[in-house]
Amino acid sequence: MLKVPEHQVAGHIAKDGKLGPLVDDRGRFYKPLQGDARGENEAKFYESFSSNKNVPDHIRGYFPVYHGVQLAEASDGSGKLPHMVLEDVVSGYVKPSVMDVKIGSRTWYPDVSEEYFNKCIKKDSATTTVSLGFRVSGLKIFDCQESRFWRPDKRVVLAYKVDGARMALRKFVSSNPSADSVPDCAYASEVYGGSNGILAKLLELKAWFETQTLYHFNSCSILMVYENESGGDERRAQVKLVDFAHVLDGNGVIDHNFFGGLCSFIKFIQDILESSDNRCENGH
Amino acid sequence: MLKVPEHQVAGHIAKDGKLGPLVDDRGRFYKPLQGDARGENEAKFYESFSSNKNVPDHIRGYFPVYHGVQLAEASDGSGKLPHMVLEDVVSGYVKPSVMDVKIGSRTWYPDVSEEYFNKCIKKDSATTTVSLGFRVSGLKIFDCQESRFWRPDKRVVLAYKVDGARMALRKFVSSNPSADSVPDCAYASEVYGGSNGILAKLLELKAWFETQTLYHFNSCSILMVYENESGGDERRAQVKLVDFAHVLDGNGVIDHNFFGGLCSFIKFIQDILESSDNRCENGH
Repeated sequence: MLKVPEHQVAGHIAKDGKLGPLVDDRGRFYKPLQGDARGENEAKFYESFSSNKNVPDHIRGYFPVYHGVQLAEASDGSGKLPHMVLEDVVSGYVKPSVMDVKIGSRTWYPDVSEEYFNKCIKKDSATTTVSLGFRVSGLKIFDCQESRFWRPDKRVVLAYKVDGARMALRKFVSSNPSADSVPDCAYASEVYGGSNGILAKLLELKAWFETQTLYHFNSCSILMVYENESGGDERRAQVKLVDFAHVLDGNGVIDHNFFGGLCSFIKFIQDILESSDNRCENGH
Repeated sequence: MLKVPEHQVAGHIAKDGKLGPLVDDRGRFYKPLQGDARGENEAKFYESFSSNKNVPDHIRGYFPVYHGVQLAEASDGSGKLPHMVLEDVVSGYVKPSVMDVKIGSRTWYPDVSEEYFNKCIKKDSATTTVSLGFRVSGLKIFDCQESRFWRPDKRVVLAYKVDGARMALRKFVSSNPSADSVPDCAYASEVYGGSNGILAKLLELKAWFETQTLYHFNSCSILMVYENESGGDERRAQVKLVDFAHVLDGNGVIDHNFFGGLCSFIKFIQDILESSDNRCENGH
C-alpha cells in the first residue's frame, strides 16, 4: 500500500487529491512521470546514469538508487500511472531533519522556451539563486528542545535573502530551530563536520564536479538529511542529489553553473563550522 | 607622448578619433574614465584593491599595477581627461600573442537596469558565456610560419560556439594559427604547461577564488600573453585580470559566477595540454 511521504520538503506534494510522489514501507519512493516531457527526461537520466560506466562508484552513492519505471495507483485518484521507483532517502530515519537546496546561479539553460526562461529568471532573481548560486527550496527540522518538527511556510523559505539562507543553514544544525533566539548550532560539528559529515561529502562531490563533463545538472537539488532520534550512535548525515528533469548532456564541458553554486554552498557550511568551532574554543 | 596601444585586442579602441586607452613608452597604460559610472567604478576598485590588506601578495601579481588617476590628452581630441594609469601588460614584448577571455556564465548582476540586463543576456546567450562560462572577447596571435600577426575579425570571434572557442585556444599556442589546417599546438607545453605556464597561474588564481569573498568580478576578463620573439630563453607567459568596471563587494559570498567559469576555462586548457601530450607520446 503506497502512502504520502512524511518527510518531503519540496516539489509536488501528493495531498488534497493532487498528483505527487508516494512511498511504500520497503524503502521505495514512487515519483509519477508527469504529463509533459519532464518526467520522461528524468527517467531517461536515471536510465543513462545507472548504466554509465564513467560514473565512479563512490559518486553513485550520492544519487538515489533507481529501480526502473512501474505502473502504480496515482495519488490523485486518476488510476494507474507510470512512476519512477527510487530509493526513499529518508526511509529508516525516525526523526529526520531534511533540507532541499537547489544548486546553481540559474535554473534555466540554453534553448529553453522564452516562457520557461522568464519564469526561471524571475524566481532566480527573487530568491538567492542569482546572488548565492543556490537557494533553500524547503526544510523540516526536528526541534529537540520542543520535541517536535519545525517547518517554515514555503513562501517564507522562498523569500530568504542571503542572511535568511545563512540562518536556515545554522538552524538546520541547532537544537532550537523554531525559537526566535540565536540558533545554537549544537550539532554543527556532528552533522556538518567530521569524516562522515555533510561537508566531507560535499567536498567529495565537488572533486567530481571539477572535471566531470558527462551531465549538466540544471535545476537539481542537494538533499541533506540527518537523524535526531536519540540512542543511535551517530547522526547518519546524508547528502543526495535529486530532481533530474532538466539534466542535459555535458558535451565535454564541466557543469560550471552547478559547480560554482556548490562551492558557494560549501563555503557557507565551512563558515558555520568555523564559527561554531570558535564559539566552543572561546567557551561561549 | 602617448600613443595608441599596438596589441590591444578587446574593449574601446582609440582610433579614428574615438576615445580609448593610450600607452606611453615607459610601460604605462592610460585608460580614460568614461562619462558614465563605469570609469569611476573601475578607479574605485583599483583604489580599494591596491590598499586591501586581505589580498595575498601572490595574487596581486595577477592584476595590473595601479598608479592612480591623471589628467592626460584624450585620444578623441577632446582635450585633457582623467585617465587611470595602469601597468601596460604587453610592454616589453616584441611579438606578443594576446587573448582576452571574459569569465563568467553571465555578465549582468543583481540590481542592474532592465536595459543593461537585456543587453547582457542577449550577448551572453549569443556567445559561449552561458554555455561555457566564458567567451573569447578578442585575440591576436603571432603566426610563426607566416611571420606575421593574425587577428580574426571581432564579429567572427564573438560568433564562436563551443568548438570555435576550443579551436581558438588551440590556435593560440600553435605555429600555424592563420592556416586552415589543424592547429599544431606546437607551443602548448611551453605556454600552457610547466611551472611558469598559464595553467599553473590559473590554478593559483582558482585556489584564491575558491574562498575569496572580497569582490565579485562581474564582466571581468583574463588576459593571456606570451612572447614569440626568438632568442629569449622563455615564453614569458602571463595571466592578468583586467576590466573592473562592474566589480561589486563580495559581502561574504564567493564569486561563484567567476569561479565556475574559471574552472570551465581551466578544463579547456587541461584538455589541450593532455591531447598535445598524447600526440607527442604517440609520435604524431
